[in-house]
Amino acid sequence: MARMNRLDALGFFAGTLTTIAFLPQVIRAWRTGKTDDLSMAMLVIFSAGVGVWLIYGLLLKSPPLIVANGVTLFLVLIILGIKLRNLKRRVSR
Amino acid sequence: MARMNRLDALGFFAGTLTTIAFLPQVIRAWRTGKTDDLSMAMLVIFSAGVGVWLIYGLLLKSPPLIVANGVTLFLVLIILGIKLRNLKRRVSR
Repeated sequence: MARMNRLDALGFFAGTLTTIAFLPQVIRAWRTGKTDDLSMAMLVIFSAGVGVWLIYGLLLKSPPLIVANGVTLFLVLIILGIKLRNLKRRVSR
Repeated sequence: MARMNRLDALGFFAGTLTTIAFLPQVIRAWRTGKTDDLSMAMLVIFSAGVGVWLIYGLLLKSPPLIVANGVTLFLVLIILGIKLRNLKRRVSR
């Protein structure tokens, strides 16, 4: 494995931050069960974008891109799932 | 300028999606004025992460990274601003 240079380390740091950022959002949505103020379009477009980043990372065989986007997609899909469940409940009322 | 290959085009497509995703969230927060369900920690950590990605892009002199992260940071800071304004109003009540 190649030695990481400072620039690579900065990229890994950035990727770690933008990935773990969604953890408190998952926890908040899970605990409160509320997702009214989250834009559905944001969740759908962002999930699609992270999915394409994941494919890009797989084609490039880039472990940091694959890990960061894989974890982010997982977290954002949980938030989207809670949002969809809430919308479904509202319709069925 | 080098001709874009298919892989680069896929990366640009991914970057465009993850950037424009925040536009409907800005519009929603702006219109409703409500940000209760948005995690403050998410907004702060995500802004910091996108800021580091921007520095990474500037050091790499990568136009797509600079543009995508510059625009994303701008949009996320608007959402964070609305969230902070709402928190301030609540405290002052």
